[in-house]
Amino acid sequence: MLDKTFLHKVRKEIIGINAKVPLIDGQKVRYINFDNAASTPSFRRVAYKVKEFLTWYSNVHRGTGFKSQISTEIYDEVHNLVADFFGANKDDNTIIFVKNTTEAINKLSNSLHLSYRDIVITTPMEHHSNLLPWRDKCKVIYSNLDKEGRLDLDDLEKKLKRYRRRIKLVAISGASNVTGYINPIHKIARLVHQYDSKILIDAAQLAPHRPIDMKENSNPEHIDYLVFSAHKMYAPFGTGVLIGAKDTFAENKPDYTGGGTVKAVTLKDVIWGDLPDKEEAGTPNIVGALALGESIKMINELKWLKIIKNEEFLLNYTLKELEKIDEVILYGSMGSGELSERVGVIPFNIKGLENTLVASILANEFGIGVRNGCFCAHPYIHHLFGLSDEEIARVKDDIAKGIYTHKYGLIRVSFGCYNSPSEVDHLIYAIKDIIARKNAGVDLTNDYKFDKETAEYRPKYKINYDRYFKI
Amino acid sequence: MLDKTFLHKVRKEIIGINAKVPLIDGQKVRYINFDNAASTPSFRRVAYKVKEFLTWYSNVHRGTGFKSQISTEIYDEVHNLVADFFGANKDDNTIIFVKNTTEAINKLSNSLHLSYRDIVITTPMEHHSNLLPWRDKCKVIYSNLDKEGRLDLDDLEKKLKRYRRRIKLVAISGASNVTGYINPIHKIARLVHQYDSKILIDAAQLAPHRPIDMKENSNPEHIDYLVFSAHKMYAPFGTGVLIGAKDTFAENKPDYTGGGTVKAVTLKDVIWGDLPDKEEAGTPNIVGALALGESIKMINELKWLKIIKNEEFLLNYTLKELEKIDEVILYGSMGSGELSERVGVIPFNIKGLENTLVASILANEFGIGVRNGCFCAHPYIHHLFGLSDEEIARVKDDIAKGIYTHKYGLIRVSFGCYNSPSEVDHLIYAIKDIIARKNAGVDLTNDYKFDKETAEYRPKYKINYDRYFKI
Repeated sequence: MLDKTFLHKVRKEIIGINAKVPLIDGQKVRYINFDNAASTPSFRRVAYKVKEFLTWYSNVHRGTGFKSQISTEIYDEVHNLVADFFGANKDDNTIIFVKNTTEAINKLSNSLHLSYRDIVITTPMEHHSNLLPWRDKCKVIYSNLDKEGRLDLDDLEKKLKRYRRRIKLVAISGASNVTGYINPIHKIARLVHQYDSKILIDAAQLAPHRPIDMKENSNPEHIDYLVFSAHKMYAPFGTGVLIGAKDTFAENKPDYTGGGTVKAVTLKDVIWGDLPDKEEAGTPNIVGALALGESIKMINELKWLKIIKNEEFLLNYTLKELEKIDEVILYGSMGSGELSERVGVIPFNIKGLENTLVASILANEFGIGVRNGCFCAHPYIHHLFGLSDEEIARVKDDIAKGIYTHKYGLIRVSFGCYNSPSEVDHLIYAIKDIIARKNAGVDLTNDYKFDKETAEYRPKYKINYDRYFKI
Repeated sequence: MLDKTFLHKVRKEIIGINAKVPLIDGQKVRYINFDNAASTPSFRRVAYKVKEFLTWYSNVHRGTGFKSQISTEIYDEVHNLVADFFGANKDDNTIIFVKNTTEAINKLSNSLHLSYRDIVITTPMEHHSNLLPWRDKCKVIYSNLDKEGRLDLDDLEKKLKRYRRRIKLVAISGASNVTGYINPIHKIARLVHQYDSKILIDAAQLAPHRPIDMKENSNPEHIDYLVFSAHKMYAPFGTGVLIGAKDTFAENKPDYTGGGTVKAVTLKDVIWGDLPDKEEAGTPNIVGALALGESIKMINELKWLKIIKNEEFLLNYTLKELEKIDEVILYGSMGSGELSERVGVIPFNIKGLENTLVASILANEFGIGVRNGCFCAHPYIHHLFGLSDEEIARVKDDIAKGIYTHKYGLIRVSFGCYNSPSEVDHLIYAIKDIIARKNAGVDLTNDYKFDKETAEYRPKYKINYDRYFKI
């Protein structure tokens, strides 16, 4: 059942929720943001806290002035808040603030001293940011997926057994940014530890939707490394986080070196500093950290149970409505069992219409923001379309030649904790309208021109953004 | 002469300029921020613009929704604003947004394909962030300084001549964060290009104080690479910038890989994206970029001439007052000629008093925020103190043993464009008061306890930061 009180409370917290945007016909409508898997709007309270903090802002560490001291206090405190939020034991783990999840994974990949003899197991369902950083540094092995795009746990175990001695890490997403599938991270962690390896959870898509408990380092279900981004958690101020065992980073030369990473420097020599300072080179994004801290407090206050309930309501409601429409193709089935649990992400297509055109019509004729294409997860899309190696090579060659088509691409609707069923109704209405016009033989591309460089259908009339916001 | 109209205008723009902070005796006074070389407060207009933007915030690139489109528009536009501000030709150069100057230099150091046979020339006056990233990647050679800490241009030329074939880069600060000395960057650039090398200007300390024109790439005085941070330019929202020739980055595998850096990915292969995308891995700090853009606009509006005039007034006034006080030791002379030009940074000590104690007294008894110690520029401090190799080794060994003393350290006053002569008066008053008490035999450490771990004198009473700001 829908919790209207919760929804009312949380929607009041979202900045820009009433913003009206222009349509192609000159009308203005309230914007519906279904692109939360890319980035969420800011909590009002986060923005307010940032504003309040700016009065006291100063650089952290080693400044003696009151503003430096209070800024340092706050910056350190957010590290603690993050540790508590994810159940990370601060004695064993370090909390490193970076820019985004991608930086966090790159930093980890540079810190593990990988060699060409080492193996990292990952999966074809990963975001590029959990694929590319492992390549060129070691041998990468992919754990199989089933046809629907779910992880094949038996295959994972087989590979863990087979390559046991050489596996340095199993790097897996907490939830997919394409299908929303949630991986059973603790079950996988137990498996991974059984074979003496370690596990990284790319929690960019999981952290905003489910509570995560890294558990004590001695626990077989412990998550060794966790990464996520604040901008997907209602704090879009440029902070990402890498949490992991101090041991991993303690003896290293830092990934990036410079101010703040050292205790002493001579022209010949250096003594590296303590964690997390040595891995947070340069002046950190103090405002971004504060924003993340406030967002965590807000999520705690909203309560996970209510956040999850609202999201599950939306997910089930939307899927049920979409399933009723013949022309809609859904990717990734709901199925049952732990591997079918999903966060609020729905990938679909409309038969006979390009995903890029549909996304553009949703935006420009209905004021609905979605994302389309391959979502920085090309191999997963190839898998979901069941493409052969030859077809994959052809797609790649086309792109190399500058031919973008998004032929194999999807439309993605992704929910934030604040989305409402009436917003879903508008989406369903829009989809039905598009299909009806298509079936009536209307040329839906009429008001658009195709941009070959980006494979986007852009409205023929020029949008005057300056009327809304300009720098 | 002091431009009171300008000062009035700019002070109104500074967030937190009227904030009152607690002193050790229970009084509250208006905070004086003389730690601008570490980080500046935010322009009011920057914070306002950020707040306004949050209504339209969404992730950039490839989102079809109006908010994605307008955010992309803004994000790209700030790249252009930055290029124009620094005279960077956009056809030849790429503008890469990162977290801070340190990340920018690390990224460049990883992008130049340095080997142990290559040489990077830098100087002992650099911040650690322009020293450490070059080590371990190539041979680093230091251009000599004179006794006052100014660059020895003859020695630089000698080294350019001697190592000509092997020199990949000359990496030099635009202005020192310790003495404020401004290096004649275009003269050096001409010299460097004469010997077929390239030049990086670490403009973290120069960009907030002087206009910089990178000039056309064909100009012999052209700056090849420029790095700086927005948090030192009244936009503390976590953005730094690396500007450089597209050629340098075009053929590379990006420094960090992942989302946004590619055109196509298969499980076996990758096609890297265009610049700057391929070097801005993951979701960028869009809010931080916007903040930088607005700050640049504000600086343009305030006008460089007036900013420089106010700063020079403050610098000369303060130095003149400090020179009158016998017990004050100033570092780096004003001298004359181009090598003596300085930004508003003044390093000093009081005879017979530890720098760390003086800094603490200034903060806790006068509400003045300065910084003390070695400012992430240890080799430069060693040079300014004229330490022998044995003494440098001893300092390093002490730190290795956990003994911090800041024996060789300084107090640094650094001005922002908004500081006023009456703030300087209060500083001079405070310094005289400290000296008078010292001369009267008062034990100035009485109200403090020494923290061995950080070499800080902290007030004995516990400061309740929560009363001012808490997360």
